[in-house]
Amino acid sequence: MIAGPCSVENAEQTLETARAVKAAGATALRGGAFKPRTSPYSFQGLKEEGLKILAAARQETGLAVVTEVLAEEDVPLVARYADVLQIGARNMQNYRLLEAVGYEGKPVLLKRGPSATMDELLLAAEYILNAGNPQVMLCERGIRTFETHTRFTLSLSAVPYLHERTHLPVVVDPSHGTGHANLVARMAAAAVAAGADGLIVEVHPNPETALSDGYQSLTFEEFEGLMEIVRRVAEAVGKEIG
Amino acid sequence: MIAGPCSVENAEQTLETARAVKAAGATALRGGAFKPRTSPYSFQGLKEEGLKILAAARQETGLAVVTEVLAEEDVPLVARYADVLQIGARNMQNYRLLEAVGYEGKPVLLKRGPSATMDELLLAAEYILNAGNPQVMLCERGIRTFETHTRFTLSLSAVPYLHERTHLPVVVDPSHGTGHANLVARMAAAAVAAGADGLIVEVHPNPETALSDGYQSLTFEEFEGLMEIVRRVAEAVGKEIG
Amino acid sequence: MIAGPCSVENAEQTLETARAVKAAGATALRGGAFKPRTSPYSFQGLKEEGLKILAAARQETGLAVVTEVLAEEDVPLVARYADVLQIGARNMQNYRLLEAVGYEGKPVLLKRGPSATMDELLLAAEYILNAGNPQVMLCERGIRTFETHTRFTLSLSAVPYLHERTHLPVVVDPSHGTGHANLVARMAAAAVAAGADGLIVEVHPNPETALSDGYQSLTFEEFEGLMEIVRRVAEAVGKEIG
Amino acid sequence: MIAGPCSVENAEQTLETARAVKAAGATALRGGAFKPRTSPYSFQGLKEEGLKILAAARQETGLAVVTEVLAEEDVPLVARYADVLQIGARNMQNYRLLEAVGYEGKPVLLKRGPSATMDELLLAAEYILNAGNPQVMLCERGIRTFETHTRFTLSLSAVPYLHERTHLPVVVDPSHGTGHANLVARMAAAAVAAGADGLIVEVHPNPETALSDGYQSLTFEEFEGLMEIVRRVAEAVGKEIG
Repeated sequence: MIAGPCSVENAEQTLETARAVKAAGATALRGGAFKPRTSPYSFQGLKEEGLKILAAARQETGLAVVTEVLAEEDVPLVARYADVLQIGARNMQNYRLLEAVGYEGKPVLLKRGPSATMDELLLAAEYILNAGNPQVMLCERGIRTFETHTRFTLSLSAVPYLHERTHLPVVVDPSHGTGHANLVARMAAAAVAAGADGLIVEVHPNPETALSDGYQSLTFEEFEGLMEIVRRVAEAVGKEIG
Repeated sequence: MIAGPCSVENAEQTLETARAVKAAGATALRGGAFKPRTSPYSFQGLKEEGLKILAAARQETGLAVVTEVLAEEDVPLVARYADVLQIGARNMQNYRLLEAVGYEGKPVLLKRGPSATMDELLLAAEYILNAGNPQVMLCERGIRTFETHTRFTLSLSAVPYLHERTHLPVVVDPSHGTGHANLVARMAAAAVAAGADGLIVEVHPNPETALSDGYQSLTFEEFEGLMEIVRRVAEAVGKEIG
Repeated sequence: MIAGPCSVENAEQTLETARAVKAAGATALRGGAFKPRTSPYSFQGLKEEGLKILAAARQETGLAVVTEVLAEEDVPLVARYADVLQIGARNMQNYRLLEAVGYEGKPVLLKRGPSATMDELLLAAEYILNAGNPQVMLCERGIRTFETHTRFTLSLSAVPYLHERTHLPVVVDPSHGTGHANLVARMAAAAVAAGADGLIVEVHPNPETALSDGYQSLTFEEFEGLMEIVRRVAEAVGKEIG
Repeated sequence: MIAGPCSVENAEQTLETARAVKAAGATALRGGAFKPRTSPYSFQGLKEEGLKILAAARQETGLAVVTEVLAEEDVPLVARYADVLQIGARNMQNYRLLEAVGYEGKPVLLKRGPSATMDELLLAAEYILNAGNPQVMLCERGIRTFETHTRFTLSLSAVPYLHERTHLPVVVDPSHGTGHANLVARMAAAAVAAGADGLIVEVHPNPETALSDGYQSLTFEEFEGLMEIVRRVAEAVGKEIG
């Protein structure tokens, strides 16, 4: 269970969230230091300062750090602070970056592009594997469809499908996959029932003031509720959460 | 839990399936007597003979009968034999038919069209409700997207979303929603975790010889496996199955 | 070139439009008397009174009448007044209705469902052809995609594709296909360049007061502009308009 | 009109194509030296050797060179040889790369991602404009939809829509947009009728032996046919081709 804020905004917000998600049972902390933003005028992240904040949160809580790397030349820097390098959906087919994290060697969380097919996802993973790094987690985070009641359409059938095609673990992101905080817990439970090996969820001390993705971030209390239902479903399907 | 063959092919196949799904814990029997087929040259169903077979299966097993009605003028005939009238995805916006089942008064299972928005689905239900029939169940059965590894993309976020918008029960069809027997049990479990009020699943004594939809039909044994996992997940989320 | 209002609202609006589109060069008048509406509370059309208005407009202008038939039992009534029976996108897979217009024998304009594949469209046409009616026109009117800047995505590659697969004429509806009046003329021109055999366009004396689809209806003046560019493109690709 | 092979395979193939498309009326030569490939095991391009071949073809024919740059660190190298830097669809949201071509200053051809919205495309262009480079051409090359009869769905309504939203020129790629050589000429004509300011088309001396995208590449003769129909339609809508 990976949880944390969309963006690392400051030390306090990050530490507070790390403590809360740790207490609720998460094992890793997510948080963006380098933020890929649709608009050049949006908040772009704290960069190295953000990485230091994440490392400090790990120091205190023992949570592993999962954070995104945006460009080939940032790989060594991000790898110095992170335990898992995340490749965002927009970069799923940035092959130079895939090779760079492949050579780096740290575990990689590879997010599926919003219109990528299963074959394209698996071949993107192949760029990392082929560079000598076997530790790749695939992440379903929603695809673009005509549906507008959710930000994306979370395609949970990808989970059992990928399990038949590959031995790589499959993580689900119900926060981006729905875009609405009130749908996240149910879709997290559904993901686990579908067989997901992990979840990555956005949590924020005060979603209404978040610098990015506030509408899909859970409060600490909502996250505890999510952990509760997810834990019960995991037990029902014979998985352990933690 | 509604289970049964795609098409009623003959009395033996239908009775055998009814007994098996009843034994595994289903409460209703599905089976098509009038079949809407993409091609005019495909098997179109046994029509009234099929309805009689379904009624005989109910008589023996006590299962409720859920079957599709294709046209306004068939409503009285189908209603004579069925407990629940199904409106197929292709007919979700056949407004005359919706009004006809509305006036008839029996419970209706309304399937979402493969490119229908949530608003269109709810307004289609409104045609039935507005004709005086409050017993409408909404059914998510997959939408058309660019994904080709499944027949449709089962959009489970529709379940919690619809629960916020309406009091109508929400049923999920993982058979049409995936199109592959080996994905059905997992997606059934996921649907229940997402909060689904019911499931409708295709089961056949011998899927390989089925006259329609064989590749997505479960064997009796697979259906028992599905019931097992679904029951455990239902318990985890505080639902009762049966 | 088929043009006219979305709905027949009254005799004056219809006649005025018929005269204007005739003057601009149209050969057929479109107009809905039976309207399939997403909501049961929207205007449902003038029904037989609307058909009479259309017939009167034909009498005066000589334009052929193209109008939608919604249900099997209305086929004889609509056929009494119309020259071409339109099957709407929502009814593309209403097989009983397809057979009914097949037996009737008048020319049919078959609109593609918003998520129908090419095979499904051709097999729907097959229901009409198989009932003995060879006069079927296929109509591309936009598909559902993630794009929201237009109401639907007009897929013009359907035109040359269908021309390779079938001898049936292909008509394009840029009004529903875009949903925005200011995109209609350009997409009409593009459709003709792609090889379309016909166009069906919504025109209204005063789009802002239209009872349905006003935002995508052209004024008389805009329609003249469309005819001008369409005529030039048609000449360029060796087609005649009229 | 930009035409040429998908990949620069060798000097002979490139020069031969350059001469042929020049003779038919093209003004720029396309050709990939750095190839982004879905699989790490596919042909990845000739890299700098390919750029030299393109420059030699320009020297002989006078055609401008349009070629893709895949990574930030390659920008100076590619800019040394190319007249226009192409950003491929997979990199539309590779913001570092966008900024890098923005600072470089040469004209940029920005391809729309296969599931990018209009706003995302315009904001991606904004990354380049904001870095001080006003010479950006937007390119519609097809979106991912449920349609499988074409590789992508070419959404030509993007052309008039973008013309209303921005002053940037809009180029259409009917080769990737359809994926089938026999649909390319018609869709090129349709694009021009829709108002496109430019076209980019794949041409190969012998499509059947092409190292990439052979099934959508035109022969020299087919390209001449395309130029013929495009020229006539351009004249009809008041554009000049060349």
